[in-house]
Amino acid sequence: MRQSKLFTKTRKEAPADEVSKNAELLIRGGFVHKEMSGVYSYLPLGLRVFKKIENIIREEMNKVGGQEVLMSSMQPKENWEKTGRWTGMDDLYKVADSSGREVALGPTHEEIVVPILKNYVSSHKDFPVVVYQIQNKFRMELRAKSGMLRGREFIMKDMYSFHTGQEDFEKFYEKMKEVYKTVFTRAGIGHLTYLTFASGGTFSKYSHEFQTITPAGEDTIYLDEENGVALNKEVLNDEVLGQLNLSKEKLVEYKAIEVGNIFDLKTKYSAPFDLSFTDDKGEKHVVLMGCYGIGLSRLMGTVVEALADDKGIIWPESIAPFAVHLLMLGEDEAVLKEAEKVYESLNKAGVEVLFDDRAGVSAGEKFSDADLLGMPLRAVVSARSLKDLSSGGIEIKKRTEEKGKIVSLDELLKIYVR
Amino acid sequence: MRQSKLFTKTRKEAPADEVSKNAELLIRGGFVHKEMSGVYSYLPLGLRVFKKIENIIREEMNKVGGQEVLMSSMQPKENWEKTGRWTGMDDLYKVADSSGREVALGPTHEEIVVPILKNYVSSHKDFPVVVYQIQNKFRMELRAKSGMLRGREFIMKDMYSFHTGQEDFEKFYEKMKEVYKTVFTRAGIGHLTYLTFASGGTFSKYSHEFQTITPAGEDTIYLDEENGVALNKEVLNDEVLGQLNLSKEKLVEYKAIEVGNIFDLKTKYSAPFDLSFTDDKGEKHVVLMGCYGIGLSRLMGTVVEALADDKGIIWPESIAPFAVHLLMLGEDEAVLKEAEKVYESLNKAGVEVLFDDRAGVSAGEKFSDADLLGMPLRAVVSARSLKDLSSGGIEIKKRTEEKGKIVSLDELLKIYVR
Repeated sequence: MRQSKLFTKTRKEAPADEVSKNAELLIRGGFVHKEMSGVYSYLPLGLRVFKKIENIIREEMNKVGGQEVLMSSMQPKENWEKTGRWTGMDDLYKVADSSGREVALGPTHEEIVVPILKNYVSSHKDFPVVVYQIQNKFRMELRAKSGMLRGREFIMKDMYSFHTGQEDFEKFYEKMKEVYKTVFTRAGIGHLTYLTFASGGTFSKYSHEFQTITPAGEDTIYLDEENGVALNKEVLNDEVLGQLNLSKEKLVEYKAIEVGNIFDLKTKYSAPFDLSFTDDKGEKHVVLMGCYGIGLSRLMGTVVEALADDKGIIWPESIAPFAVHLLMLGEDEAVLKEAEKVYESLNKAGVEVLFDDRAGVSAGEKFSDADLLGMPLRAVVSARSLKDLSSGGIEIKKRTEEKGKIVSLDELLKIYVR
Repeated sequence: MRQSKLFTKTRKEAPADEVSKNAELLIRGGFVHKEMSGVYSYLPLGLRVFKKIENIIREEMNKVGGQEVLMSSMQPKENWEKTGRWTGMDDLYKVADSSGREVALGPTHEEIVVPILKNYVSSHKDFPVVVYQIQNKFRMELRAKSGMLRGREFIMKDMYSFHTGQEDFEKFYEKMKEVYKTVFTRAGIGHLTYLTFASGGTFSKYSHEFQTITPAGEDTIYLDEENGVALNKEVLNDEVLGQLNLSKEKLVEYKAIEVGNIFDLKTKYSAPFDLSFTDDKGEKHVVLMGCYGIGLSRLMGTVVEALADDKGIIWPESIAPFAVHLLMLGEDEAVLKEAEKVYESLNKAGVEVLFDDRAGVSAGEKFSDADLLGMPLRAVVSARSLKDLSSGGIEIKKRTEEKGKIVSLDELLKIYVR
């Protein structure tokens, strides 16, 4: 894409009320626009990142047999009354029509997915079932000050699994631990993200979170680096340490962001709706459930928080809006011609390029925009780079490295096309 | 996909309160689930249709330079007060947090897209700009009785164009008429869909709707079949007939569904936010706007209404959840083996197949499910079809035709792979 055609521009400053680093950088880069506290719109660059995250998650959920659906945001009050959450959930938004009839704006979808399943599954032969969606959620956060990390409106992947027995559930739950590791590794934060034991609420001993280490995190975790296992501060006590065979001396305290979680729901939501099955002897049992969440907006914000440097964002290749940021510096005929040729060749080879073809913008400004926007590779065509035409004519530099080098168009293409 | 693994099943009856044909068939087929009046969730088969419609629309919007964004549902009250629609729009849902602060739930996005643009465009060189999204909308419909045709929560493509002059706007507007025709043709209802002159509100003489002829339509149009042009009943008068050079005798009355509309917004939304540009003389002018909508859920419902027969849905190839519905009848070893072979071969060739591999389901039930679900081609492997093994062994029949024929696997593959 030509940057001259992109309607967004970089900005020197984020809105004064924006205190989080992730939102500040994403707003300054034109990835998102802040509508109000905790509510952001995705602009073209941000939507490209978002779609790549979405595709990684979708691929991994499909691999474990997840069937994708798209459930509604508006949810019947009766369903929420059945589970006790109409009055029991503080952050539930309620909306009324002109007749005064109220509905919930879904912060999560147990109250919807269970009644859906009840229409279709009843025999043990129908199980296991795994259903997921990637959809926007609403939560009444009174202090939404962490940018994309905690929104009033945000986008989440929520998956629900349904099982006829504990063993089948546990097998799937263990598989999901691996799948989540794969997702975070593919999204570029695997090396900072740890399976973390957290409190399990009423039903199970622990729940499992995936926590990404970064100073902006709202959670405190204790990490045993040797074993790659962490504890949320809320469960740090001698009993737990004993059970998990961890020693307190080896634990290091970190701030971290919860990028995903997996829950054993037992029959908490299946029982109120009587979602049950008959076994091979004709006996009826309540279905067991698990749920598995990843906030996509939060994941985007976490990547920014965890990887950015003082010059701007650093996108991992897997979720970068473009693989290459091609900069044309100066307006010499020769530079223009060569830059256009590089742009066309990369496009033709299927490489995603953002082409900074803007006229009247200084080299310094283009360099600092490239650093802020954070594409994995910067490729520069300038009068200077063309002086090295014998050795290639294009100066490339990884966003994560200080020094660049001169390559030819063929050498540049070879990085992407095998 | 194996039908035995699909968690949805067909149903004999839709909910008693569902009076529309489109929702009745979509619910019975397991494409959607009704949450409440005017609110539906998409189940796996429905989501597949939806994604195909989405891709057609996205491709066509990208072709005219549309830049995709994803704007928030929650919208600041101040923005709606600025345009006078906070109190002036009857179907606007408002939602309050616990502090009593109210926000709008977006039924449309002029109040969001204009302030976004104001951050980035200011010179005549920044124009034209075309921005679109595919996103869920909320409208307080008190009587939502038309299934997917009129929802309280629904999914829409809304595009907004921004221009520095009337001529530039009109050129784009004319282009969009063609693009919309292409979208509806690609979605399989081009032959039933007509450009229709409707009332233009306060600002322009007419607006333009795209109306699809079908008895379930809520609108009445008058069609001049020779010229392929229609009038909405609301503008049928002698003055309009004269201006459009139409004669009343040639017009035929039809019921129709508005599947798309395009509007000349002039400065209605740019003026309140002072979205303006400086021309090449340094003078400031207010930006001109157009908007262009297609309801995706409504388009899905319209295809069902317009094309279904008394046996069920008929999906056009371009948006069918699967190209082929492969039915295995009976449980002979030979049938099972051949059906599995056909399924694998089609999958390997990249043909999308729904494989009815269910055991213990009668041939009659499988045939009536195939008719209800409406895939373009049915392929049957049975003891009977295998008797014709010398002539191929697979009985294929188009959903729109009465008679089938026997083909070989190679002949079946040749339909899809060139």
